Parts: sequence; structure tokens; C-alpha cells
Amino acid sequence: MSTDDPALITCRPIGRVISRFTEAQGMPIQTAGALDEPLQLEVYAEFEAGLRDIEGFDHLWLLTHLHQVPQERLEVVPFLDQHSHGVFATRAPARPNRLGLSLVRLIGREGRWLQLAGNDLLDGTPVLDIKPYVPRFDVRETQRIGWFEGHLDRLASTCSDGRMTGDGSPGPTTSSR
Amino acid sequence: MSTDDPALITCRPIGRVISRFTEAQGMPIQTAGALDEPLQLEVYAEFEAGLRDIEGFDHLWLLTHLHQVPQERLEVVPFLDQHSHGVFATRAPARPNRLGLSLVRLIGREGRWLQLAGNDLLDGTPVLDIKPYVPRFDVRETQRIGWFEGHLDRLASTCSDGRMTGDGSPGPTTSSR
Repeated sequence: MSTDDPALITCRPIGRVISRFTEAQGMPIQTAGALDEPLQLEVYAEFEAGLRDIEGFDHLWLLTHLHQVPQERLEVVPFLDQHSHGVFATRAPARPNRLGLSLVRLIGREGRWLQLAGNDLLDGTPVLDIKPYVPRFDVRETQRIGWFEGHLDRLASTCSDGRMTGDGSPGPTTSSR
Repeated sequence: MSTDDPALITCRPIGRVISRFTEAQGMPIQTAGALDEPLQLEVYAEFEAGLRDIEGFDHLWLLTHLHQVPQERLEVVPFLDQHSHGVFATRAPARPNRLGLSLVRLIGREGRWLQLAGNDLLDGTPVLDIKPYVPRFDVRETQRIGWFEGHLDRLASTCSDGRMTGDGSPGPTTSSR
């Protein structure tokens, strides 16, 4: 697929993450496993007007570009498992388009800076969109969670093993996303 | 920002939506308002391997490119309200990067075709990612939902007014996203 393919879609970051995590090794694999980990979001000046009234929400979705993922994959061994799955049946970062979805808690806003908690993002991660979390839209009664069943008790103690792929055999710090 | 800006991020669709909605006028504004509306997702052949084991999940997130949105905006009057808000405090489609987040129910899979329910998407919408819905990751106890408070009782009866912007005065079919 050439770079001038009309099907390609170009996005520009609306902001970036400031995080204490500067390498994948040892970082949380989901915000749910690190609810109190702080992070900051700097929204670029040209997008600041889009933040008006965001203070009214407890939680936000961040759509991000997982810029440090070295290679996109279609099949991965996710951090929380030892078996391979199709990447669209996982939350592994090494996926086509490297798009991330992080649910974060809004602590406060100062101008175009948001103070957040729940951090599974590397420092400098480009943010492509912010959406308010609305349970009426975003919560469904769910019975079947595939291979995750029985694998979530290790969430809080599982870290990225630093490969950012979520595939291969588990590293020294066994991890799953 | 020029098109060769290194900060720009290029995505390629991994599939496309087949939907009965071919124009924005009258379509649901959220999947939660149209839980039984069917849609299909064709995943392109080169990405089919990524679907393995997806059958185990009740619900999926679709990250989409809202390709028919004519203009990105920073402030909008969302379908469900009559007052203007910053777009990042709304779910309006007319937003920077035009990225959509649709929570859908997985009915079945035949090869690289997924049968889904919960449809707020136009026919032909490019899909950039599929993620499994995992309540442990995606559900938070939430008290504050900003301006949506008191505006959600009209969700099921509210349709897009066709402008795909979620701004301006409400159209003939009053609508809010």
C-alpha cells in the first residue's frame, strides 16, 4: 500500500502524555491495574477550546497512538496469557494502527493541562482524541470475555515485560494486556 | 501543518462497516440508543488472522474513522443539548481526527465477516481497530457526567439531524450525541 493511497487516514495529535514511564519495561498494562498512577495530558494550544466543560466528568477516554510499539502484529501472546490469540481478541499494543484506548480519571484541569489518574501510557504518547466517559453509552451487561476469563486476578501485579508486543514467551516480569 | 509533518500519524483501515444507514439524517446517535440495530463488519483479508478467538466475546469496541463528517470543530452544540460545549466534552462526530468509538454486540462470525448489533455507523465507515470489551478494564463507578446529566432520557428517541456536526441549532429531528 503506497503512502499516497487514498484509503489511508491521517491523524494529527491533539496533545501528549506526560508520564513517569519512559520505557515499557515494568509499566502497567491497563489503567484498571494502576488506578492511582498519576499522569498529565498537555493539550496543544490550538485545541484548548475543545476542553470547555470537560471539568464536569469523572472519567475520560483517551485515544492514543502507541508510538513506541516497534512492530504491528496479527497474532500475539498477550501479557496475561501464555497462548497465542488473534490481536483483535486482545488488548495488546502491537496491533494494526497501534491505537490505544485508556480510561482515565480526571483529577483537575489547569488551562490546557489535565491532571489524570490511571496510567498505562509511556511519556510522550501522542493523544488523538478525548471523549467523556458516559456509563449509559459505555457500559454493557457482559457474560463472555473470551480467554480473559480466569486471567484477570493477576492484573494489578502484571507489568509490561518491555517488548511492547504482548507476544513471545512471558518475560522475567510476566505480563498481559 | 504540512502533510509531511513528522508528527502526523497515518492509519489504514482494517475493514469497513456495512450498515443500512447511508446518510446521517435520522440515524442513531449512539449504539446504546439502537442496541438491536444490526450491522456487519467486513475485515479485509490481510487482517483476518487477527480475528482468531474473537468469537469468545459478547461485546467489541470498534474504533472508526467518521469519514462523512464534513468539518472538524472545537465547539459544538451536541445532539442531546441546546448549549455549546467543547467538543472533547461531547461525543459529537465533528471532532479533531473524526475518530469514533462504537460499543457493539457480537452476534456471530463467518470467516472475516462479523455480524454485530448496536449500530450508530454509516455504511462504508472505515474501521481502524477492534478491541474486546472487558468490563474489568472498561467499567468505572462514575458519579459525574457533566452536561449529559438529565439529557439521557431522550437517547433512544434522538436521531442525527443529518448535519453530522452536532452543532448549530437543533434540526427538524432534534438530536444529540
